[in-house]
Amino acid sequence: MSATILDGRALATTLREEVAAEVAAFKERRGLTPTLALVRAGEDPASVSYARAIAKTCEQVGVGFSAHILPAEADEAQIVALVADLSRDPTVHGIMIQEPLPKGVRPTAVLEALAPGKDVDGVHPVNAGRLAQAAPAGRGEEPADYFVPATPAGGMEILRRYGVPLEGKHAVVVGRSNIVGKPMALLLLRQNATVTLCHSRTADLPGVCRLADILVAAVGRARMIKGDWVKPGAVVVDFGVNFEEGKMCGDVDFDEAVKVAGMITPVPGGTGPMTNIMLMRNVLEAARRQSEGR
Amino acid sequence: MSATILDGRALATTLREEVAAEVAAFKERRGLTPTLALVRAGEDPASVSYARAIAKTCEQVGVGFSAHILPAEADEAQIVALVADLSRDPTVHGIMIQEPLPKGVRPTAVLEALAPGKDVDGVHPVNAGRLAQAAPAGRGEEPADYFVPATPAGGMEILRRYGVPLEGKHAVVVGRSNIVGKPMALLLLRQNATVTLCHSRTADLPGVCRLADILVAAVGRARMIKGDWVKPGAVVVDFGVNFEEGKMCGDVDFDEAVKVAGMITPVPGGTGPMTNIMLMRNVLEAARRQSEGR
Repeated sequence: MSATILDGRALATTLREEVAAEVAAFKERRGLTPTLALVRAGEDPASVSYARAIAKTCEQVGVGFSAHILPAEADEAQIVALVADLSRDPTVHGIMIQEPLPKGVRPTAVLEALAPGKDVDGVHPVNAGRLAQAAPAGRGEEPADYFVPATPAGGMEILRRYGVPLEGKHAVVVGRSNIVGKPMALLLLRQNATVTLCHSRTADLPGVCRLADILVAAVGRARMIKGDWVKPGAVVVDFGVNFEEGKMCGDVDFDEAVKVAGMITPVPGGTGPMTNIMLMRNVLEAARRQSEGR
Repeated sequence: MSATILDGRALATTLREEVAAEVAAFKERRGLTPTLALVRAGEDPASVSYARAIAKTCEQVGVGFSAHILPAEADEAQIVALVADLSRDPTVHGIMIQEPLPKGVRPTAVLEALAPGKDVDGVHPVNAGRLAQAAPAGRGEEPADYFVPATPAGGMEILRRYGVPLEGKHAVVVGRSNIVGKPMALLLLRQNATVTLCHSRTADLPGVCRLADILVAAVGRARMIKGDWVKPGAVVVDFGVNFEEGKMCGDVDFDEAVKVAGMITPVPGGTGPMTNIMLMRNVLEAARRQSEGR
């Protein structure tokens, strides 16, 4: 038996069409173009190539894009000033700040200059806090508007579109970064999963992974999670983007895990293609809120 | 064999002396009294009695206290105006807003009026977000100053003072409230525990509890967690405050669990007495930050 492949690439194509149609309708109705501003200091190759992919997705769905590139040696005051300017600029609806920041620049200082309502990357503490405080889906007061980081949002969207039940399931998230692991854990919790968060200090990681009905990998280590760490029938969501001998692979040993899992995201073609389109949804949503004065 | 009792009452007494000495030194040095303002609408008996306990603790440690009581039918605008006034008042260093708020008053609106630097109860999304984003203890950049809710902070302080090792341990937190369960989970994660968050939808709750090296109960159901849900030797932290036939009891069946656990907080006398003194520490810390212009 072999697992069902959770085809993020195909899903992203569908979503691109959906979002493009929504963006077009929004432009028609409001007479304005949802626009993303990207901020970067220097020319880190991975960041440059990621920015190029974002620009392309913006074009595909009709979202405006501008890149604001400072020299690699930019200081904190310059970056803060740029982010503050963009936060005030009414023609910019979403702002994304690429890492790495130059040495000595404090991320907290940069984040303080970022308007939470334009934080389409979900990195501002107010957005992280509203996600952390969000009531279980469908219960209790909704918190104020907030943004969820695009990568875990994409993983959740895959689970949703494939109809994977989450309520009462045991989800194990390996990795506790602020942009993937922790928000993914909180999103799964919102959907009433029981959630375990693991990391480099976890004792008996294989044993903990084997508890998972939903196993989420977000560690950044090539094929670290082996087939026998996967409970038969489990749903595996792999956020890993690693390269081995020039070939992209996930955090999960796909060839092994595909024989055991019930469903699995491949790498490439799983969670990866979802990220940019989820970012576009956030930009559209930001433009909507701003045009309604929220 | 019987578990070691984690004596929160004795610890709180020690802490009261420590904090009182720190407050006195602060007053001497800065010529100002750390002051807590309490906000409430109406006279909910539990809130009134809690407020009285807080006022008493303030007096014991030399912290200033003022209560701002609105009528039970106060509307959102009134409460927001009061919280905004206190947020601007330089003689107030910490603000605590008691629940329940009157019907129709949105907690999010009230929180928006609260200065995060005076949120000694750790309920503002910025504080929740900074806790959620905090790097593992001793690693990475410290986030900007923030406040942790007093109840889970008290539980962590008990574990710290009793020298309970957390790194690599499996902590299971039952209950996911924004003031106890979720922040406790994030605090344990910061100390490099593997953390599982459980709730009313968790399947096989007894089985999940039995995984715990550290078992944390924060559900609010009298003696729900049975002795045979406790792994032999586990450390049990009980945040429950329930009443059965007029007698206070925790979420854990103490009489059963004490025979199995390695260490356990009793109810009363465990986590309860710690909360107010942790709140005092937050008020002192808020006054420190404000006097330094942070």
